[in-house]
Amino acid sequence: MTDQPVLPQGFLTAGAHCGIKDDTERFDLALFASEKACTAAGVFTQNRVCGAPVKVSRDRLPRSTARGVVINSGNANACTGERGLEDARHMTSLTARGLGCADEDVLVCSTGLIGHFLPREQLDAGIPELVEKLSASPASFAEAARGMMTTDTVPKQATRSSKLVGKAVRVSGAAKGAAMIGPNMATMLAVVMTDAELDPDQADGLLQHAVDRSFNCISVEGHTSTSDSVILLANAAAGTGPLEECDLGTLQQMLDEVCEELATAIIRDAEGADHIITIDVGGLRTLDEARRIARTVANDALVKTAITGADPNWGRIVSAVGRAGVDLREEDITLLLNGTPLYKSGAPVGYDESAVSTGMRNNREVSIELKFPLGEESTRFWTSDLTTEYVRLNSEYTT
Amino acid sequence: MTDQPVLPQGFLTAGAHCGIKDDTERFDLALFASEKACTAAGVFTQNRVCGAPVKVSRDRLPRSTARGVVINSGNANACTGERGLEDARHMTSLTARGLGCADEDVLVCSTGLIGHFLPREQLDAGIPELVEKLSASPASFAEAARGMMTTDTVPKQATRSSKLVGKAVRVSGAAKGAAMIGPNMATMLAVVMTDAELDPDQADGLLQHAVDRSFNCISVEGHTSTSDSVILLANAAAGTGPLEECDLGTLQQMLDEVCEELATAIIRDAEGADHIITIDVGGLRTLDEARRIARTVANDALVKTAITGADPNWGRIVSAVGRAGVDLREEDITLLLNGTPLYKSGAPVGYDESAVSTGMRNNREVSIELKFPLGEESTRFWTSDLTTEYVRLNSEYTT
Repeated sequence: MTDQPVLPQGFLTAGAHCGIKDDTERFDLALFASEKACTAAGVFTQNRVCGAPVKVSRDRLPRSTARGVVINSGNANACTGERGLEDARHMTSLTARGLGCADEDVLVCSTGLIGHFLPREQLDAGIPELVEKLSASPASFAEAARGMMTTDTVPKQATRSSKLVGKAVRVSGAAKGAAMIGPNMATMLAVVMTDAELDPDQADGLLQHAVDRSFNCISVEGHTSTSDSVILLANAAAGTGPLEECDLGTLQQMLDEVCEELATAIIRDAEGADHIITIDVGGLRTLDEARRIARTVANDALVKTAITGADPNWGRIVSAVGRAGVDLREEDITLLLNGTPLYKSGAPVGYDESAVSTGMRNNREVSIELKFPLGEESTRFWTSDLTTEYVRLNSEYTT
Repeated sequence: MTDQPVLPQGFLTAGAHCGIKDDTERFDLALFASEKACTAAGVFTQNRVCGAPVKVSRDRLPRSTARGVVINSGNANACTGERGLEDARHMTSLTARGLGCADEDVLVCSTGLIGHFLPREQLDAGIPELVEKLSASPASFAEAARGMMTTDTVPKQATRSSKLVGKAVRVSGAAKGAAMIGPNMATMLAVVMTDAELDPDQADGLLQHAVDRSFNCISVEGHTSTSDSVILLANAAAGTGPLEECDLGTLQQMLDEVCEELATAIIRDAEGADHIITIDVGGLRTLDEARRIARTVANDALVKTAITGADPNWGRIVSAVGRAGVDLREEDITLLLNGTPLYKSGAPVGYDESAVSTGMRNNREVSIELKFPLGEESTRFWTSDLTTEYVRLNSEYTT
């Protein structure tokens, strides 16, 4: 299923270092551009305090004449007032000049420290160079992915290809994020590109669907940041023409897979994590109930630390379920850990504790399954455990 | 204001070791008894999964003929089904036999591991001995406080005395808890006694008021446990007779102070904490808004780790405010840390970062003040920071 990360037709990318980060080896700029005007949609943080780029980009979306997304890392341009808004608009203006389009056709994202002004001089020199570097090569796509990184240890890219109405269509994306990841997104950015043809309403609907099942289902510490943004660009370069319902379904599937791969890559890169935890919750009356339970278990410090210690502590998981605010009885809860039943219909089940613990100690992946007899709705969440390394990293990261 | 912890008139207490805990040096039983029938009220966990003792005690409260509260530590008697309920009732029955009252006049609490059955033999031998040891001495009160402890490093007691209608009245309580403390209480237990006269409705109202401003305002990791219980006993031994409104107000103040002292003692004993954080939130439209903001900041892992690192990272605090689900604008937020303004009406304020950081490093107490121009409601929360030691303790604690 997974292809090598390559760009869809008609897209160009670049990454560069301009000096926002001190380390000259590390890129701090990224550009994702379409050769011609394209449809763009976005999903943004729900935090009431949001960065200037979020405000600027949100105002410009959805639109049908977009040309690209310019991103800087190392500085979130958040809590920076009127000057921050000017700086964000300035970034789009510099980019638009290079691409030969209107300022409003460029979107902008920033990620990094909060409360610092962007350095104008570095942007003024760096963005024109960035535009110069634009290329359709896989190497340039990887460089753009690196240009978004902050505390990430690896760049994150994903691609899916398929035939739609006889044409080769691709969906490709890049994301950054390794901490401050909460449901409803967090310090994460993603740009997803496709050469299929979509109108702004279709792009909006497809993106919201994919984000609801991917970036909104991951959590490191439950903190929704000021800067989270996912932007979709669709440039019609594959020549499919407007898509029928059935082809839209295929494209949705491709987009869902790209977003899920990027979202789980963020969890795999979670700061200081020893375990990657997949939480499946099924059998609830509503999707909201299933999500509420999954989110409460995913964000529970006691569940996370138990998994860090390879302890099949079902009591902490069951107790987290009980405090999720969902109307249920103890007898409704059945729990499996790595496939082994630990708790069934409200009572502990005999199991080989040392075998389960050894399995947790020797595998990076841990599966928590919670089953209820209350309905048909289900969801899947991904999270990481909580280690001393996480605390060390987050208490030493300075403002 | 603070007296030595002594019992109100007409109350007897005891603590003992019966063998629920392996270590014979550590008490695992506590009894708080009134010499004569008294009024009793309780506030319990809101977790849908709750321990058998919570179910048994909740059913018996409020009442006017209570005689005492029997408590065991080391085993929560939670997720133990029908047998757990029988064991909890059996504990009250053994106690009632010793006190010479009906089973229903005894309340019961358990705290410790989830999912294990209580050892009947140890209880059958231990509870009669516990009743034998009952005494009005300060030493027996301290022993009862020790009998409730699990991971606590110190027993927690508080006392307030005053004159009501010319009589000396006392309010005294004991509590346990050092982790799994979330708003709406967590693995915490408290018993508060007074020799004032209260009817069951008055006792209920006074206790709910005090708990809302104390045990419901503390958080270590935001996990509401299966066992949290606060029980108030009022035995009228001071001879005040029924109290007028004004005297009830004085008693409320005494009860509030005792509960606040016990609640903050829990935070001071938080597992692996380096800092005790007081969060004052003021100027909101409703108390619910103020609490929502205080709770979100208190439970935020990024805020906690920043404070562990003595980092005045106002960005994380402001971002936590933004995700609290309260309708506000960035410009509404003003933040002071240890009295120093860091952020005013939506913009960072120049301040001496190294002085603030040094102050955080050298003091165990940290104050976060958040001020809004939206209304008149305010609240105070207490929490602890998140250290590598917390993770170590909670990943090594086994089921």
